[in-house]
Amino acid sequence: MSAGSDKEANLAAAAELVTSAAASGANLVALPEVFAWRGPQEREPEIAEPLAGRIGTFASELARRLGIWLVAGSILESADDRAAAGRCYNTTALFSPDGMLAASYRKIHLFDVDVEGRIQVRESKTRLAGDSPCCVDTELGRIGLAICYDLRFPELFRGLAAAGAEIVVLPSAFTAPTGRAHWHTLVRARAIENQCYVIAPDQFGASSMGFENYGHSLIVDPWGDVMADAGPGGPCVVTAELSAALLARVRSELPALGHRRLGA
Amino acid sequence: MSAGSDKEANLAAAAELVTSAAASGANLVALPEVFAWRGPQEREPEIAEPLAGRIGTFASELARRLGIWLVAGSILESADDRAAAGRCYNTTALFSPDGMLAASYRKIHLFDVDVEGRIQVRESKTRLAGDSPCCVDTELGRIGLAICYDLRFPELFRGLAAAGAEIVVLPSAFTAPTGRAHWHTLVRARAIENQCYVIAPDQFGASSMGFENYGHSLIVDPWGDVMADAGPGGPCVVTAELSAALLARVRSELPALGHRRLGA
Repeated sequence: MSAGSDKEANLAAAAELVTSAAASGANLVALPEVFAWRGPQEREPEIAEPLAGRIGTFASELARRLGIWLVAGSILESADDRAAAGRCYNTTALFSPDGMLAASYRKIHLFDVDVEGRIQVRESKTRLAGDSPCCVDTELGRIGLAICYDLRFPELFRGLAAAGAEIVVLPSAFTAPTGRAHWHTLVRARAIENQCYVIAPDQFGASSMGFENYGHSLIVDPWGDVMADAGPGGPCVVTAELSAALLARVRSELPALGHRRLGA
Repeated sequence: MSAGSDKEANLAAAAELVTSAAASGANLVALPEVFAWRGPQEREPEIAEPLAGRIGTFASELARRLGIWLVAGSILESADDRAAAGRCYNTTALFSPDGMLAASYRKIHLFDVDVEGRIQVRESKTRLAGDSPCCVDTELGRIGLAICYDLRFPELFRGLAAAGAEIVVLPSAFTAPTGRAHWHTLVRARAIENQCYVIAPDQFGASSMGFENYGHSLIVDPWGDVMADAGPGGPCVVTAELSAALLARVRSELPALGHRRLGA
């Protein structure tokens, strides 16, 4: 999806897409980073809310109503300590089919870049970094969470793999220039080297940060094959059937996770 | 190149290719893994030699005669301790333009896999694993060394990046099925995430381990763009001009190496 600055309109669009995914049989549905609001960066502190706020409540009720696991892409989560100085966390939240908050993960790596003539972003101006990787058991498998720019840091995914992650969900709002150069390669590499599924919903269209998003939401299997690719634009749902048997076979035939010898 | 079990023939072929590369202006030339001998695995203990043996002397003299940095892909290096039980190391060696052994690296991750109906290899049957990553300064830049299956272990390359590697040389003899599925993606991912050049010479043709090699020797720049790809087969030289300015620009515009927060 491509979120704008009207929170209720974004939630309505998300509800429609998630409902459509569930209707097609999805047990786990993932929305992209900042799916509920994108607007002028200086407004983020006032837009931020607790995980039990409007967006979290929306996601909890949607998950419960549809009986699905729902990854609420990311929410600008208010930080209540004074050190935050008005900044918020960029937090993804996993809701269970009974509407409970099963896990939440605050983005660890903030996107502060200045690619000449193309992208100038300073995420840390309004956002705080988390410091705790997150991996949680579900009846669908063990799920790890990461967000967008985290993709460039293989050590985060190695930690999730060491914690047993079988599925990593990576809500994103990746830029188009860096996406063209790196998105498919890095998403597939994380799946290959950690022998896990990677589900990477990505925004498309104009970002409020001043760049185009890349789109191309991906679902990649543990062998690195792309099972679904949303293409460059247009709101849509892509689905795939995950196989515990395939995951087990890949890990058995090419037992690279068991061959780790450095920092394992 | 595609090495067979005639060591002298392999060295003659390597000399011709390296001489041709130097004639085209190369300052750094890299040969693939086990470039000097591939034969029945049970013969490896008797074939193994010290780094100052026939192959190392050949490489040293070739580097000195041509005035180049030469990565002697890998050499089956004899191990003199009793615990080796006849096994040898799989070691890559970097020779300087004055013919000195500037660095050597013993492959840390051994290839023990059993991909159904396609590849059955147990490298550890005749080979010992090293345990020390290797990164060395040269006037061409700081060079890190890794070998083939190491490619699947991003933590090794993160360590090289943390040690300042600007060029990683990865001599390989990658299998064709896993190469088709993973080679370009993983080689490019290592370059992208560590913002370094990756030079990955790969054998083509039939391996003595019972599989076809993938070929496709690659040179990839720090943005992940493929500068040279040798294609699937035929002995050949591929070259590219490395740019310290491009490396500096990538690291400055997208300063991801400075954004590491886990295990950095």
